[in-house]
Amino acid sequence: MHFPGTLDDLPTPALLIDLDVVKRNSAAMASRFESLGVALRPHLKTAKAVEVARLATRGHGGGLTVSTLAEAAFFAQAGFRDITWAVTAVPARLAAADEIQRTQAAVIGLIADDPELAGALGAEAARLGTRFRVHVEIDSGEHRTGLAWDDPLVRTTAGVIHAHPALELAGVLTHGGHAYGSFDPVEIARIAEEERLAVVRAAGRLREAGLPCDVVSAGSTPTAIHGRRFDGLTEFRPGVYTLFDLAQVARHCCRIEDIAVAVLTTVLSRQPRHDRAIVDAGALAVSKDLSAAGALPDTGYGWLVARDGNTRVGNLHLEQLDQEHGYATGSPEDLDSLRPLQRLRVLPNHACITAACHDAFWVVSGGQVVDRWPRVSGWEADREDA
Amino acid sequence: MHFPGTLDDLPTPALLIDLDVVKRNSAAMASRFESLGVALRPHLKTAKAVEVARLATRGHGGGLTVSTLAEAAFFAQAGFRDITWAVTAVPARLAAADEIQRTQAAVIGLIADDPELAGALGAEAARLGTRFRVHVEIDSGEHRTGLAWDDPLVRTTAGVIHAHPALELAGVLTHGGHAYGSFDPVEIARIAEEERLAVVRAAGRLREAGLPCDVVSAGSTPTAIHGRRFDGLTEFRPGVYTLFDLAQVARHCCRIEDIAVAVLTTVLSRQPRHDRAIVDAGALAVSKDLSAAGALPDTGYGWLVARDGNTRVGNLHLEQLDQEHGYATGSPEDLDSLRPLQRLRVLPNHACITAACHDAFWVVSGGQVVDRWPRVSGWEADREDA
Repeated sequence: MHFPGTLDDLPTPALLIDLDVVKRNSAAMASRFESLGVALRPHLKTAKAVEVARLATRGHGGGLTVSTLAEAAFFAQAGFRDITWAVTAVPARLAAADEIQRTQAAVIGLIADDPELAGALGAEAARLGTRFRVHVEIDSGEHRTGLAWDDPLVRTTAGVIHAHPALELAGVLTHGGHAYGSFDPVEIARIAEEERLAVVRAAGRLREAGLPCDVVSAGSTPTAIHGRRFDGLTEFRPGVYTLFDLAQVARHCCRIEDIAVAVLTTVLSRQPRHDRAIVDAGALAVSKDLSAAGALPDTGYGWLVARDGNTRVGNLHLEQLDQEHGYATGSPEDLDSLRPLQRLRVLPNHACITAACHDAFWVVSGGQVVDRWPRVSGWEADREDA
Repeated sequence: MHFPGTLDDLPTPALLIDLDVVKRNSAAMASRFESLGVALRPHLKTAKAVEVARLATRGHGGGLTVSTLAEAAFFAQAGFRDITWAVTAVPARLAAADEIQRTQAAVIGLIADDPELAGALGAEAARLGTRFRVHVEIDSGEHRTGLAWDDPLVRTTAGVIHAHPALELAGVLTHGGHAYGSFDPVEIARIAEEERLAVVRAAGRLREAGLPCDVVSAGSTPTAIHGRRFDGLTEFRPGVYTLFDLAQVARHCCRIEDIAVAVLTTVLSRQPRHDRAIVDAGALAVSKDLSAAGALPDTGYGWLVARDGNTRVGNLHLEQLDQEHGYATGSPEDLDSLRPLQRLRVLPNHACITAACHDAFWVVSGGQVVDRWPRVSGWEADREDA
């Protein structure tokens, strides 16, 4: 389509991003961490779009966090040279990571939580004739990957990295993902402090042992927003704050009007005998994520809001998803108000997972569709090579 | 990569398809409907791959069912000329559908369940200077879209289609999707008969009224397998049988060894203190679909099976998914048996939704990776145009 266009020109389902809201969200977080004196290294696993990476790094060093090598390659090609791949590195992927380093003059920072694996990373880096910066991952309470800060293996792993000529010890890194286990800001603030202390203490142990530890990295959106202390940290890695979603509303991280992402959908059918309406946003357009469903009333797979913004239509929401159909339910009056071919937006439970259903954002500003931003998907750094 | 390769050459997570199993599944269903004298019009929303469409149409007329215009364009470009788009058609998408008809010499069959919308489809088709074949959608009990067979609107809608010079009345079509509400073969057989009777009776009403009704179409995989009578039907539209999944095992539609699809994953970390192992197949590789979780023991977001096939590793399964991490749980012995960097497969709850996370199948035969089959995704018929 030609820009600017209207929302009625888009084929549905379509992923929308509100330009003014993503700018505001990005600027607010950048400003918060600028005033805290902590570098922002935004996690681009949520937006997976170059234009959002540019907005999110304004006023900061330009470093990014990614979850896949496909993201690393995509952002490196767009000029981002300092990228942390915040998922446990495995030797089999180092050739692809190094290809990005070499062809894009980028640095791909890795994470490791095991001395044996760190040694294997070093051996593979040496075989490739390259060098990687590696962070020791600390488990601050999420219990996904990482080592407890006081586990002697932290120092052992760091020692293996530091001693290996093909590796450079970058520092320590953690993700307070257990903040997602709570909807209470006070509890999330407590977790934020746990997250901070875990890496600050781990960094202290390494420095006491004479090991370098330039990077002391933590981060999630809930802990970025509800955390009170950030001293001792050198960087923070929130991501979903660029777009926000119902799960963040449920955690008091944002207001409804701060949600920058939605799925535009068309009403296909009214089923008055069955108390529902059918829309063309199903599981492949919305995802089956239910992150906020237990915490916000009448949520299901997402809220239905007006075509032109985040104004909810009564309590309408998606209660069931087939592959290409969404089942909308709500009060009889709200359902009665819907007409076939009417357009609505779905506000998602979890922006990262819903956005990943789509290969681009349609960019909305002032009620017009003004641009289309490609998103990266998959895991391969170079599909042509695959 | 070069073919043949090994499973260890693949980056993970990776979507696998077992060539011999998909061939066997396709041949069995084709043979069943050949002997029943009913045309098979396989639904390609599951596999979304040309090679599977070719296997699934062998011995039948080559007609396909699709759920998006992106699929319609993809398969038309590959030479499939007779395609039913089995989701309620809306006027705004007819230009894209007609583009496929014109450029590929294909026929895109539509469905409608409302006389007013049927009229709007006719008006748009006339404006485009084209013509569409349209089926009246019947609701056989799923209550998603469609009209009850005895609703007077069936005849009204058919009449509007038949009378419009830009439309051709193809017949009637239903989807017994409520078969997914049951795990009991006897109950599914009852639903299959309900599905059959709904369209056969609707077709009878139209013929009594002097309207043409060449197509009498029904179909889902559970009703294809557990249904006992198919007389009066002209075609059947199952789809997931090509790949099968745990939800089909739970409905006694197939055995574990008939599941042709899996996600190859790598163990990233053992967390002995926390009774889990972490693998690199998360929500974006597996989906958050839980279709079989309530019906099969120890299922969660999918079973973990051996790297080389569908042999389960004890009761290991994915109990939680983050974006790029899967949390594997099971007996202490099964967890103890896992080693970092070990490769496993995830058998999915729902093949359609899991496969849609990936842009290609890696094709496995005889323990080797022998090919890569691209999959279509998204909704736009022509992204370059978008």
